[in-house]
Amino acid sequence: MINDKMYELGTKKSTIRTIFEFGRKRAAEVGEENIYDFSLGNPNVPTPQFIKDAIIDILNTMEPTAVHGYTVAPGNPQVRETLAKSINERFGTNFAGKNLFITAGAAAAITISFKALCETHDEFITFAPYFPEYKCFVESVGGKLIVVPAQIPDFQINFDEFEKAINIHTKAVIINSPNNPSGAVYSEETITILSDILRKKSEEFNHPIFIISDEPYREISYDIDVPYVPKYYDNTLVCYSYSKSFSLPGERIGYIVVPDEVADFGKIYGSIAGAARVLTHVNAPSLWQLVIAKCAGKPSDISIYRHNAELLYNGLIDAGFTCNKPQGAFYLFPKCLEDDDYAFCERAKKYDLLLVPGKDFGCPGYFRAAYCIKTDTIERSLPLFKKLAAEYK
Amino acid sequence: MINDKMYELGTKKSTIRTIFEFGRKRAAEVGEENIYDFSLGNPNVPTPQFIKDAIIDILNTMEPTAVHGYTVAPGNPQVRETLAKSINERFGTNFAGKNLFITAGAAAAITISFKALCETHDEFITFAPYFPEYKCFVESVGGKLIVVPAQIPDFQINFDEFEKAINIHTKAVIINSPNNPSGAVYSEETITILSDILRKKSEEFNHPIFIISDEPYREISYDIDVPYVPKYYDNTLVCYSYSKSFSLPGERIGYIVVPDEVADFGKIYGSIAGAARVLTHVNAPSLWQLVIAKCAGKPSDISIYRHNAELLYNGLIDAGFTCNKPQGAFYLFPKCLEDDDYAFCERAKKYDLLLVPGKDFGCPGYFRAAYCIKTDTIERSLPLFKKLAAEYK
Repeated sequence: MINDKMYELGTKKSTIRTIFEFGRKRAAEVGEENIYDFSLGNPNVPTPQFIKDAIIDILNTMEPTAVHGYTVAPGNPQVRETLAKSINERFGTNFAGKNLFITAGAAAAITISFKALCETHDEFITFAPYFPEYKCFVESVGGKLIVVPAQIPDFQINFDEFEKAINIHTKAVIINSPNNPSGAVYSEETITILSDILRKKSEEFNHPIFIISDEPYREISYDIDVPYVPKYYDNTLVCYSYSKSFSLPGERIGYIVVPDEVADFGKIYGSIAGAARVLTHVNAPSLWQLVIAKCAGKPSDISIYRHNAELLYNGLIDAGFTCNKPQGAFYLFPKCLEDDDYAFCERAKKYDLLLVPGKDFGCPGYFRAAYCIKTDTIERSLPLFKKLAAEYK
Repeated sequence: MINDKMYELGTKKSTIRTIFEFGRKRAAEVGEENIYDFSLGNPNVPTPQFIKDAIIDILNTMEPTAVHGYTVAPGNPQVRETLAKSINERFGTNFAGKNLFITAGAAAAITISFKALCETHDEFITFAPYFPEYKCFVESVGGKLIVVPAQIPDFQINFDEFEKAINIHTKAVIINSPNNPSGAVYSEETITILSDILRKKSEEFNHPIFIISDEPYREISYDIDVPYVPKYYDNTLVCYSYSKSFSLPGERIGYIVVPDEVADFGKIYGSIAGAARVLTHVNAPSLWQLVIAKCAGKPSDISIYRHNAELLYNGLIDAGFTCNKPQGAFYLFPKCLEDDDYAFCERAKKYDLLLVPGKDFGCPGYFRAAYCIKTDTIERSLPLFKKLAAEYK
């Protein structure tokens, strides 16, 4: 009667969802303040004041039909020019408005990119640990997601395994740096090696292999440079979102950059437009297009994330955990104190510490702790992490 | 290198787009005021003041993280409760929040519904004249769109042809009343007969056949009742949008109603959630969810459309055209003065009258004139319609 695959996708609870619901239940029993919920990647830094100011200014100065009317599918041309200019100022690139396609956030941007590129038998490669929705999005457009095992312990790219995975069917590689869940930022060296391999393999297989650079966490990095991928590799599509940088995850606004240098600009941009059309895009929310143009280049306030990152990192190290120093995004990805990450996260629940097993990100033996939560909660959680660690001594 | 089907969908210009671009070119040559562009279905009634007031009130009184944060995928639970209550007050239904799934407009609502329902070999039936994007949306989810020829001259449903088209593969029937492009509203009799046939056929084929009621023009009708379909037929999904009622087409906000009475509520609602997930939904824009809840039940101002409808209708009749009285939406759908609607619309261009051939809506020999434009433009166009008609005398 219905599409069973859709039913499964719509009703099968994710681990994160299950943990979240457990947390809600426990909060009702023992009180909100006694739950240490590190499970959700929801920005907790308030949306900046300049966003509110921009909205009110637009409403007060523009004709409502111009504010709320349809835009062309790729987005308001002036908005795209403004964003292109802002990107150019920052990265020394040379984009124009025609290189941008404004989308309803990064989920739309990457899925549209997958659908635009995907032909029969195509494979898309990503690197563990990875955002699990990639699998569902790639499969929904008829592609196959290949996951390259994690590079332990630095969570850069495991190139030996990557060279084994890449083949004639590889259409694109999806990277996500700063990374959810590892908190790692891919170094210039990593991007350079990746680009070299892809150039060599594109030639060998006689077709372009793309990088889809999923960058919702670009602005959240700590004293470390996040390389701008189109400067290293021509066949790059950048998928950006304002969800994290401006704390607007519910508003669904972002974009795809299609550089002039991609293998065939007209073909790719045209396919993106077609993919957007059947993915119910019409246009990205029009008021939000105007708001992000007005706020282009404004800084993201990451001071809270930085503080939380240090606090949690130091606390975990002090408690005896092994963990990389936070480089970006708002996650730590420490090693569990036993091999079975599911068992470890279950044990953590005893202390109402809600953590996500690494296996869900293709990297068993680790756990994800999202520190985009109240600083006070993190402070009060540290003795509990110590107690948890003591169980393993 | 790319998905050729997506390229075709993204680059093949629609007739409407071609006419629109012709209009832009002519406007540059002869001046904006000398172009009579009846081609686009863009609301021209200004977005009501209460929308602006609602936005500002929300921004001033709520926490920004609550305004702009993720909502659950089906939409903010309180918003859904409010909308359900408002629908119940109006139509005497008995919906709760759980019966609503908030979407990014009607295009998303109908495509999500198609994807949720569509299994291999499924067919979806619609009635000419029809919104041409249905074909692209249905095919994108793997279904086949069957078009039942128009019921001439009243543009209700041609039930003889419908009974020939319906078969064991029929999954759903898509109706759009008030109708784009005919301006007709399906009568209570039409909905009753349709429901009776569908009940009979569902029994005969031993599976439910759904009505997907695409209702972006629900609020725009002139002294005529628009039957609320779930009251006549259990297996109905209502797809609503605020694009036309509140002049918010660019903001992408609407919903799907899934009544308790559908064949299997849990299965269908679950499939809708899964379909939304792979169609890059995440959640409908969060600020807009709050705005529509705040404005639930507020009236749509259709006085301009009503005035324009009468003006254009009387003018066309006076010029010798055959045309049904406008019942709803913001289109007239008169008979062309020659059999070939493309040739007729080409000839109209001589007078800078930009009209859309009925063939594009599956109904050759007619043309669509969208009257959601300046009243003054319509007034000044009437002598030109007379001149055009005179050519055929």
